[in-house]
Amino acid sequence: MIPLVKTGEPLFRQVYRSLRQSMVSGAFRGGHRLPSTRDLAEELGISRTVALLAYELLLAEGFVVGRGGSGTYVASSLSAGPSKKHKRSVPLPLSRFGSAAAEAADGASLPGRRAAPLRYDFVWRSDMETFPFEAWRRILLRKARAAPVRAHDYGPAAGTLALREAIAAHLRRSRAVVCDASEVIIVNGSQQALDLIARVLLEHGDTVAVEDPQYQGTREVLLAAGAKLRPVAVDADGMNPANLPAQGARLVFVTPSHQFPTGTILPLPRRLALLDWARRKHAVIVEDDYDGEFHYAGRPLESLQGLDNEGRIVYVGTFSRTIFPALRIGYLIAPKSLASAFTAAKWLSDRHSATLEQQTLAEFIDSGMYERHLRRLRRRNTSRRTALLEAIHKYLGNRVQMTGDGAGVHVVLWLDRRASEKAIIEKAAARGVGVYGVSRYFLRHPRQGLMLGYSRLKEPEIREGIRQLSEII
Amino acid sequence: MIPLVKTGEPLFRQVYRSLRQSMVSGAFRGGHRLPSTRDLAEELGISRTVALLAYELLLAEGFVVGRGGSGTYVASSLSAGPSKKHKRSVPLPLSRFGSAAAEAADGASLPGRRAAPLRYDFVWRSDMETFPFEAWRRILLRKARAAPVRAHDYGPAAGTLALREAIAAHLRRSRAVVCDASEVIIVNGSQQALDLIARVLLEHGDTVAVEDPQYQGTREVLLAAGAKLRPVAVDADGMNPANLPAQGARLVFVTPSHQFPTGTILPLPRRLALLDWARRKHAVIVEDDYDGEFHYAGRPLESLQGLDNEGRIVYVGTFSRTIFPALRIGYLIAPKSLASAFTAAKWLSDRHSATLEQQTLAEFIDSGMYERHLRRLRRRNTSRRTALLEAIHKYLGNRVQMTGDGAGVHVVLWLDRRASEKAIIEKAAARGVGVYGVSRYFLRHPRQGLMLGYSRLKEPEIREGIRQLSEII
Repeated sequence: MIPLVKTGEPLFRQVYRSLRQSMVSGAFRGGHRLPSTRDLAEELGISRTVALLAYELLLAEGFVVGRGGSGTYVASSLSAGPSKKHKRSVPLPLSRFGSAAAEAADGASLPGRRAAPLRYDFVWRSDMETFPFEAWRRILLRKARAAPVRAHDYGPAAGTLALREAIAAHLRRSRAVVCDASEVIIVNGSQQALDLIARVLLEHGDTVAVEDPQYQGTREVLLAAGAKLRPVAVDADGMNPANLPAQGARLVFVTPSHQFPTGTILPLPRRLALLDWARRKHAVIVEDDYDGEFHYAGRPLESLQGLDNEGRIVYVGTFSRTIFPALRIGYLIAPKSLASAFTAAKWLSDRHSATLEQQTLAEFIDSGMYERHLRRLRRRNTSRRTALLEAIHKYLGNRVQMTGDGAGVHVVLWLDRRASEKAIIEKAAARGVGVYGVSRYFLRHPRQGLMLGYSRLKEPEIREGIRQLSEII
Repeated sequence: MIPLVKTGEPLFRQVYRSLRQSMVSGAFRGGHRLPSTRDLAEELGISRTVALLAYELLLAEGFVVGRGGSGTYVASSLSAGPSKKHKRSVPLPLSRFGSAAAEAADGASLPGRRAAPLRYDFVWRSDMETFPFEAWRRILLRKARAAPVRAHDYGPAAGTLALREAIAAHLRRSRAVVCDASEVIIVNGSQQALDLIARVLLEHGDTVAVEDPQYQGTREVLLAAGAKLRPVAVDADGMNPANLPAQGARLVFVTPSHQFPTGTILPLPRRLALLDWARRKHAVIVEDDYDGEFHYAGRPLESLQGLDNEGRIVYVGTFSRTIFPALRIGYLIAPKSLASAFTAAKWLSDRHSATLEQQTLAEFIDSGMYERHLRRLRRRNTSRRTALLEAIHKYLGNRVQMTGDGAGVHVVLWLDRRASEKAIIEKAAARGVGVYGVSRYFLRHPRQGLMLGYSRLKEPEIREGIRQLSEII
């Protein structure tokens, strides 16, 4: 019998559990006679009442049977039960999606594999230090206090109306997105938007056009959905629509504001050609505007969605890069014809996103704090970008070719063929400089290059990081 | 030209946007000459600087071209652009999942269709009034304050370690679930657990055994996944494993602690027979323990998962019924062999659940507040159950047959064939009494009955509600 330990659990339940475990594991088989409560009490050094209570519990659950005055026996049904083996885990087959997901996780994208912290980490994520956490917490607490009990019940699948209206108004203003609240679906970050798009619009085996290189989160979702990917090469002006598959595609995924990862901006003629191709091929365009809030002098650029007159664009955005990722709030703007299907899919997937975060964010936007924060963030990113471009000019000169400085918060330094992306990344890491390879984002003809995010570093760190990097490249 | 309105947006951007819209909509075609900045300024009553700035923006985006001194022209690329039509939404085809989701949403399960509030609402959801909101908010605020900036970055896909450990310890103690933190995956309510299970383990066309009647959230997820449902009739002892499909099934979904909706409790011999069937057929069992925390005198019942020695059970639970639904936190306990696939699927679906809620909940459990709250809730539910059973006995006597009083927070009153479930529900609603039909939960041979949840009503309300109901039945 398993020894009893002090756990705060009533003693009779510990005894019960211990006996029960012996039966389930097969140590006591069906028909086995248990000790009398008196013997058990003596054996375990417990009171007879405790032993009695434990037996009653076993009786009530059907683990044992009492045979009149003749004692207590393990139920015979247990002889057909589990064997003597300890709990093991037999291998179980996965679905195609399950296998693909498991395979994707073997790649580099699951977190928690980070090495030692880097002193100059040019990670392409956005600055969080600038965020007004104190003001945010004040709203959070106010919302938590103000919510009546019934507001803690299930909420609307597409998100709270206040947040949907706040986002629609913000996107109309800042990104020229043509939408109203009824077309906004609140999701848990843009990742859920991408996943819902794949689920609602794709069948296993469907053709999907993607930029090459492309964001790995998009690629993983599409591969797990069983899509056939048609990579369309990206040049200095982004994806060339002339190279879109002539036979069409169900979907095309694009990042026109700041191509991921190359950072190029899709010019107007290509935008119009892309819309025209989609119209001719009856394709849906997914516009992932992951850092559209950041653009620099002389290159204001608004959403592709605002140019679409047919309702062929699903527009995806996130607050992970302007607020913080742990919030898990993003959105998709569906064409009217798809809004109810996306709402239903969100409901089936997880009912809705956490309510308190939605309420807090809605007020944060409505109060004007979000736009003030964005302005501050843009100013910071602008200075950091300037520091980066100056440092690259000073230390790397024309040893490297650069793309991506027109928008967003990262650039790419392209390496020539003789260089080794991997070796440079490792050497840089050894000096505490974090840079990230772009070759893994390519489906075909990978090119070597380094992604340098500048939003999380201060200007002196940027300068020193680039100086260090220049000694390696 | 669209009239300008005061929106707080800089005037030059309003002008820019207005002109841009005219071009996109086709009102100004490619090659069209725009008015001079002087004429435009006069026409709109704005300064010439504003007009100039607007034109510069259009020029930078490529909407217009300047032809030396001869004026500003709409870019010729726009002639191939969108037509004159206003934004419309062309119909777009959905995937099988998308269609099924949209169809499910046409059913009754999407919220927001509730009629006038009911005075005696026997909804089967759990009490929220008992929840210690003030203590919860204190933890929430403390966690929000204590989190360093980096804690707002992406977190682990399966959930924070603290919460996974807290849940594992709680389930071992309270539900005899055999698990450790590495097998716990935090999800957005049990709905996401059900959806991930279907995605990770099912292929379109796979056979799945379900209790009949069954929870509509499960049914909708399975139908959307393209599963072939094999209903197994539920009798007074729950689902009879002898009626499980002889040819096997990939999955079987059960609610052994308190069958949904009939409320029956699966006895030990049937539990063992179910495990045996799953072993023989290589099936996976999904145990949805949606209200396993509530059970009454003489019928303690622990999890089916604790009886499994092979790792064939995915155990699903939620905090929607013991804390509140808007929290959106639930969990699945995966067999060791499936833990990494579920973690990867969660990562692909939405990266992870909101961090602050996870941190708050972990401390709420670790501090012992959760167990104290559960004890209070159990006491309340026990009194309410007593009030209900007495009122049913007093006012309805043996006019009805009842099931489900051994556990959970609802019972079912079965109606005879002459009665009309629909008419009774409508008549009751007209008197302010909310009762809910069970016939819609059946796949085959629907029986009529009323679900009566008692957790959200006070004892006098329960008595009066049943008295009113007795005048209708």
